[in-house]
Amino acid sequence: MRAIHKGLEGVIVGESGISFIDGSKGRLLYRGYDIRDLADSSYEEVSYLLLYGRLPNKKELNRYSNELRAHRYLPKRIVKMMHTFCGSMTPMEALRTVVSALSCHDPDSRKDSPKHLLSTGIGLIAKFPTIVAYYHRIENGLRPIEPDPEMSHAANFLYMLSGERPDEISERAFDTDLVLHADHELNASTFSARVTISTLSDIHSAITSAVGTLKGPLHGGAAQEVYSMLRQIGSEKNVEKYVKNALGRHERIMGFGHRVYKTYDPRARILRAMCEKLSEQKKIMKWYDMSVKTEDVMLKSKNLYPNVDFYSASVYHLLGINLDLDSPIFAISRISGWVAHVLEQYADNRLIRPTTIYTGPKGLKFIPLENR
Amino acid sequence: MRAIHKGLEGVIVGESGISFIDGSKGRLLYRGYDIRDLADSSYEEVSYLLLYGRLPNKKELNRYSNELRAHRYLPKRIVKMMHTFCGSMTPMEALRTVVSALSCHDPDSRKDSPKHLLSTGIGLIAKFPTIVAYYHRIENGLRPIEPDPEMSHAANFLYMLSGERPDEISERAFDTDLVLHADHELNASTFSARVTISTLSDIHSAITSAVGTLKGPLHGGAAQEVYSMLRQIGSEKNVEKYVKNALGRHERIMGFGHRVYKTYDPRARILRAMCEKLSEQKKIMKWYDMSVKTEDVMLKSKNLYPNVDFYSASVYHLLGINLDLDSPIFAISRISGWVAHVLEQYADNRLIRPTTIYTGPKGLKFIPLENR
Repeated sequence: MRAIHKGLEGVIVGESGISFIDGSKGRLLYRGYDIRDLADSSYEEVSYLLLYGRLPNKKELNRYSNELRAHRYLPKRIVKMMHTFCGSMTPMEALRTVVSALSCHDPDSRKDSPKHLLSTGIGLIAKFPTIVAYYHRIENGLRPIEPDPEMSHAANFLYMLSGERPDEISERAFDTDLVLHADHELNASTFSARVTISTLSDIHSAITSAVGTLKGPLHGGAAQEVYSMLRQIGSEKNVEKYVKNALGRHERIMGFGHRVYKTYDPRARILRAMCEKLSEQKKIMKWYDMSVKTEDVMLKSKNLYPNVDFYSASVYHLLGINLDLDSPIFAISRISGWVAHVLEQYADNRLIRPTTIYTGPKGLKFIPLENR
Repeated sequence: MRAIHKGLEGVIVGESGISFIDGSKGRLLYRGYDIRDLADSSYEEVSYLLLYGRLPNKKELNRYSNELRAHRYLPKRIVKMMHTFCGSMTPMEALRTVVSALSCHDPDSRKDSPKHLLSTGIGLIAKFPTIVAYYHRIENGLRPIEPDPEMSHAANFLYMLSGERPDEISERAFDTDLVLHADHELNASTFSARVTISTLSDIHSAITSAVGTLKGPLHGGAAQEVYSMLRQIGSEKNVEKYVKNALGRHERIMGFGHRVYKTYDPRARILRAMCEKLSEQKKIMKWYDMSVKTEDVMLKSKNLYPNVDFYSASVYHLLGINLDLDSPIFAISRISGWVAHVLEQYADNRLIRPTTIYTGPKGLKFIPLENR
């Protein structure tokens, strides 16, 4: 009798050189660099690092940033399509559909090569913020705002959402958030992208699968739930009572604990500092204070640390971002990881196809319909 | 050092009671019934069997068939969207995009339950032939043909493609082809549907992933390549020379051999008989004769048996179906298996998330951009 690996937990599907997590020490590396060192760089720089396997020099970063800026625009018929579906799809459903539809603008989709995968992947990385911002504005009865090629990846997204150019600290906070979510080993969405490309399908198919997989509540960001909880708590002085009551009813406190990190999630620590800075600048300390207090109570009573979603909630709220965009923002960042994994899978491919044990009946006698 | 299971070959991800293959004996069971016994039943009957785990009685089959007939229609805005993309997408890209877009007509997409998964899944099974036929006609500058609720699932698809009601033998041949492709254990597309639903995402996401994964040449039907080869061969008398020359050049003969079946693929045997019948009725024996001869030569020279794609090629051609529809037809049939697997995964879910071994560098020193 062979062993069943339900959920494939701990099963090693292959080698990877993209990111590395040391859960016991609370460390995360992208291509060998500590996330704490990368936190001050830009999303463009980290995206380049994930795709090309090394940090860019100034000229390379400039070229890559320009490539992203040039590909931010959406074809007219795609925008038209978004209007058609508006109001009847969640932002993640819209993102999944648009990524799939964008293959109609890929004249070379039938002849794949690493070079074509890379350039199409970069095009999608560039377009993700535009798709999310456009759909969000159309959904809310607002005119979509054209991308501004003068702005960074992070600033331009905030600008396309609100129509206002973000201040420096807001841009920095959002950029950091994007950097922190860009890759995280073989999570379920990344794995689904690799499964899809393993039949030598195409990158639109792979990224579409990843978006659909990220959409599930067992994967995507929980920042929205964290924010709802913080709103319910209302102020710092209610935290202790709220948490103790919730734990007494055996309810889960959102944004705490992680399957992999057994200590402080390094991303949460960075985002906590960013959240503090942003709160000070906005002169709204309420969300940060509640969060820190919740962290204290949870650590003392349950020995659990906050995960990356926990401080994302307050950061997004302080940036004026509607919290129903938490999973789409996760996708805007994680797509760099997805593309890197697709390229890695493609470069040394084997069809990914595990097996199941059949536990149903055998040899049933077929009775013709007339006699049933 | 733990073992690497590249491609997860032989790794057991869980139990399943849907289909069972005995490759050494050339047997395939759906829910315990031998495919040879099911070959004469209808796609509706087999679809019901896969979804509900048992054969329907007359009343149940009637109700299920009516449900499928009622859901064949596509919403207007979806058809409009297909017009917009026409000519710039392959049929599989169009199918993937439309499945994703159809979630906009699912008012309950945010609250999933087994019942909701099943009813949405049945809706998609019903609509797949319409999507493929509509897109094919629009692509070829023809008006789409409305589904006919009087016809069976198989007959209605042939009717929507050509505008002509198929004769009995044509309907039977196509129905058999659909029955034979409806499930096949945990192939890559089915696995990708299970990975996606394992985050508790939704059925549109899962089926969209499956279509994108099926699209790859390492998975989808090879009937198109088989047909190209038969056209090149041209007639029965050229077969031996063609095959020997190709083998001499170490080229692969399409439609032969199977990873699992080490003897005659039971589906190929059934389709061979169907192909003979159809050829006799159409009084066009050329394709059948070439195929049988190719089979003889391959068995003698390479000890390889034809797989299910091999006779599909001639059957589709004899039915007047353009061979670029081979993968979409595969999807039209396999979606019943996909939905059954999604339901099975959902009923006893565990997030599917294997791991990788990190082989990249560690502890790289971050050099600020200015100094690179």
